[in-house]
Amino acid sequence: LDDLLQESLLSSASGYSNYRGILNWCVIMLVLSNARLFLENLLKYGILVDPIQVISLFLKDPYRWPAACLVIASNIFIMIALYTERRLSVGAIGENVGIIIHSINLSTVLFFPVATLLMVNSVTPVGGVLALAVYTILFLKLYSYKDVNKWCREIHLSPTVSAFISDMYYFVFAPTLCYELNFPRSPRIRKRFLLRRLFEMLFFMQLLVGLIQQWMVPTIQNSMKPFQDMDYSRMIERLLKLAVPNHFIWLIFFYWFFHSSLNFVAELMQFGDREFYRDWWNSETITYFWQNWNIPVHKWCLRHFYKPMLKRGMSKWVGQTAVFLISAFFHEYLVSVPLKMFRLWAFMGMMAQLPLAWLVGRVFQGNYGNAAVWISLIIGQPIAVLMYVHDYYVLHYGGEEPAAPVLLS
Amino acid sequence: LDDLLQESLLSSASGYSNYRGILNWCVIMLVLSNARLFLENLLKYGILVDPIQVISLFLKDPYRWPAACLVIASNIFIMIALYTERRLSVGAIGENVGIIIHSINLSTVLFFPVATLLMVNSVTPVGGVLALAVYTILFLKLYSYKDVNKWCREIHLSPTVSAFISDMYYFVFAPTLCYELNFPRSPRIRKRFLLRRLFEMLFFMQLLVGLIQQWMVPTIQNSMKPFQDMDYSRMIERLLKLAVPNHFIWLIFFYWFFHSSLNFVAELMQFGDREFYRDWWNSETITYFWQNWNIPVHKWCLRHFYKPMLKRGMSKWVGQTAVFLISAFFHEYLVSVPLKMFRLWAFMGMMAQLPLAWLVGRVFQGNYGNAAVWISLIIGQPIAVLMYVHDYYVLHYGGEEPAAPVLLS
Repeated sequence: LDDLLQESLLSSASGYSNYRGILNWCVIMLVLSNARLFLENLLKYGILVDPIQVISLFLKDPYRWPAACLVIASNIFIMIALYTERRLSVGAIGENVGIIIHSINLSTVLFFPVATLLMVNSVTPVGGVLALAVYTILFLKLYSYKDVNKWCREIHLSPTVSAFISDMYYFVFAPTLCYELNFPRSPRIRKRFLLRRLFEMLFFMQLLVGLIQQWMVPTIQNSMKPFQDMDYSRMIERLLKLAVPNHFIWLIFFYWFFHSSLNFVAELMQFGDREFYRDWWNSETITYFWQNWNIPVHKWCLRHFYKPMLKRGMSKWVGQTAVFLISAFFHEYLVSVPLKMFRLWAFMGMMAQLPLAWLVGRVFQGNYGNAAVWISLIIGQPIAVLMYVHDYYVLHYGGEEPAAPVLLS
Repeated sequence: LDDLLQESLLSSASGYSNYRGILNWCVIMLVLSNARLFLENLLKYGILVDPIQVISLFLKDPYRWPAACLVIASNIFIMIALYTERRLSVGAIGENVGIIIHSINLSTVLFFPVATLLMVNSVTPVGGVLALAVYTILFLKLYSYKDVNKWCREIHLSPTVSAFISDMYYFVFAPTLCYELNFPRSPRIRKRFLLRRLFEMLFFMQLLVGLIQQWMVPTIQNSMKPFQDMDYSRMIERLLKLAVPNHFIWLIFFYWFFHSSLNFVAELMQFGDREFYRDWWNSETITYFWQNWNIPVHKWCLRHFYKPMLKRGMSKWVGQTAVFLISAFFHEYLVSVPLKMFRLWAFMGMMAQLPLAWLVGRVFQGNYGNAAVWISLIIGQPIAVLMYVHDYYVLHYGGEEPAAPVLLS
C-alpha cells in the first residue's frame, strides 16, 4: 500500500516538464489537417495541375521571347563593366571618368528592362519577373565588382585576375553577390551531392507549380468576392485560408532556391562558401530574420551599402532605415513593373518591417518573439498577395469575377 | 574577405540540429488553421451553442428523473457491502457465505441499472451514460472493498476502521477505485488550488458542451450522407474532418476530468495521492498509453485482476488479454445500453488494441512509436463515433437525414 503524497503531473507543484510527445502531436495534427484540406480540394476542384498551361506563364506569343532576349542582352552591360575596369586598372581613364561610366551602366541595368517591359506587350507577368530578377542580381553584382576593384586600386593591389573574361563570368554565375579576387573553392565536385540537389530542384519545382495551380489559384479566386463586397469576417476567413498554401509555397520556395538550387550551382562551380542562409527559423526578432534568411543579399547590403554609410558618418539607425528603403524599392520594382500596376503595397510591406521590428523587440522576448516573427511571415505575405491580386482583377476586369484563372491565361 | 569553406545548415555535413523555432511554427500553424475553421464554422452555421438545450440532454420528461433515482438507489448496494463486511469481521457469517452475498450484490450493481434503462423510456442517452458510469465506478470500488477486507482477515489484521459508515463514504467519494484502510492524506486544503480547479471545471465543462454543439454535431450530420452512399473518398474526408474536433474534445475531457475534477475532489477531501495520470503523451507503445492515461483504473486492474490472475498461475499474456477483455466489456456496456443498440463497435475497438499494440511495438520505435500512438488515438476514436452515430441514425430514422440534431432533441 503506497503511502506517499503525490501531485498530478500537470500541477505546477509537480515540477514536471517533459512534453516531448507534444511536438509529435503538433506534427501529426498538421499533417492530418492538411491531408484533409488536400482531399477536400481534390473532391471540389478535381485535378487542376496542368504542365502544358505552365508554358503559357512564360510565353504569350511562341514566336517572340522578349524576356529571354532581355536576359541575353544583359551581356552588354557585363562587357561594359569589364572593359571599364580594364581601362581603369592600366590608368587609361581616371577614377572620376570610371565612376561616371559605371553609374550610367548601372542605371541602364536597372531601367532598360523596365522600359522594355512597359513597351513590349507580349511579356507575361512571370516572364517579366524572371527578367527583372536577373537584371537586379546583375545590378548588385556589377556594383560589388566596381567597388572591390576600386578598393584594390586604393591599396595598390593589382587586380590582374579580374581582367579575364572567364573570371568575370565565374563571378556572374557564382551563387554570391559580393565580388572577391579569389573565391574560396571546394576541392572537388561531389557527384552524389550534385545529383541529390538536382533531383530536389526538379521535384520542388514541380511541387511548387502544382501547389500554386491546385491550391493557391482557386483560393485566391474564391477570395475576390468577399474583398469586393468588403465583407470583413469573410475577408479574414479567406486570408487565413490563403495563409496556409502561401506559407507552404514560400517555405518550399526557400528550400528550393536557397538550399537546392544555390548548392547545385555552387557544387558545379566548386564554389566553397555555402552560407546562403542561417537559422532564421529560430529568429526571436524581426531584425534577426532579415539578417539571416537571405545571406547573399544580407552580405551585399552590409559590405556595399551599410558599412560605407557608417564610414561616411551616418548613424546606425539611418543606415538600417536606408537598407530597408532600398530593399523596399527592389521589392516594389520586382512586382509593379511585371504587373504594370504601381500600388506600393510591396514597398509599404517592407517599410512596415521597421516599426514592426521595433514593436516585436520591445514587447516579445524569446519564444514569444519567435512566434511573433512566424505570425508576421504567415499573415503578412498573403495580405500583400491579396492586395495585388485584388487590384489586378479590378484593373483588368472592372470588378467582374473572371471564370478562368487570369494569371495563368 | 572570408576564405573559409562553409556548408549550408540544412546539408547533413553541417552537423546543425537546432530547430527549436519549428515547434513554435507547428503551434502557430495549428492555431491559425483552427482559427480559420472556427470562423468558417461560425459563418456557415451561426451560433449553435444553446445552454437551455443542454438540459434536454439530461431530461426527457421534467417530472421524471430516472437517472438521478438510479444514482440515489445505489446507496442500497453500498449498505449491503458494508453490512456484509461487518458480519464477516465479527465472524457472524462464514467466508463462503460472504463471497456469495458479495457476488450477488456486485452482479446486481452491474445489471440492475441495465434492466432499468432498457425498461424505462424517459431516460436520455446522456442520462443513461452518467447513471451507468456511476454504477460501474461503484462496482469497481465495492469489488476492491471486499478484496481488501478479505486480505486483511487473511493476515489477521482487524479492519475495524472499515466498519464505520463515514469511512465507507469517504472511500465512495474519494478519487480512487482501490480501497485502503488508511488513505494518504494531504495536510490542509489549499484554497487557491481548490478555487483554480473549480474554475477550470466550470470553464472546461462549458467549453466541452459548446464545442460539441457548435463543431461536433454539424460535422457528424454532414457525414451521414457519404456514409449512407458508401462514397469512400468523401468518407475519408469526413472522418479526417471529424477527427480534429473529436480529438480536441477528448483532450479537453481528459484535462477536465483527470486533472481539474479529480484534483478538486481530492483537495476537498484532503486525499493525498494525486497520481490520476502519468505522462501518456510521451507513450512510445500502445501498452504504455493504456498503462498511463487512466491511473485509477490501471491500479485497480493491476491490484484486483491482473496480479490475482498471475498468482493463480496464469501467464502474463493471458492476464493482459483478460484485462483488455473486461475493459472492452465495460466500454461496450457504457455505450450500448444507453443507446439501446448492441453493435460491439466499442468492444471490438478495445480488443483491436491488442494486435495494434503488438504491431506498433514491432514496427515503430521511439518518436515513430509515439507518432503511431497519437495517430491511433486521433483516427481510432472518430471511426468508432461515426459507426455508432451512423447505426443510430439508420435505426431511428431509417436512413433518412434528420433536419435537427437528433442526439440533442
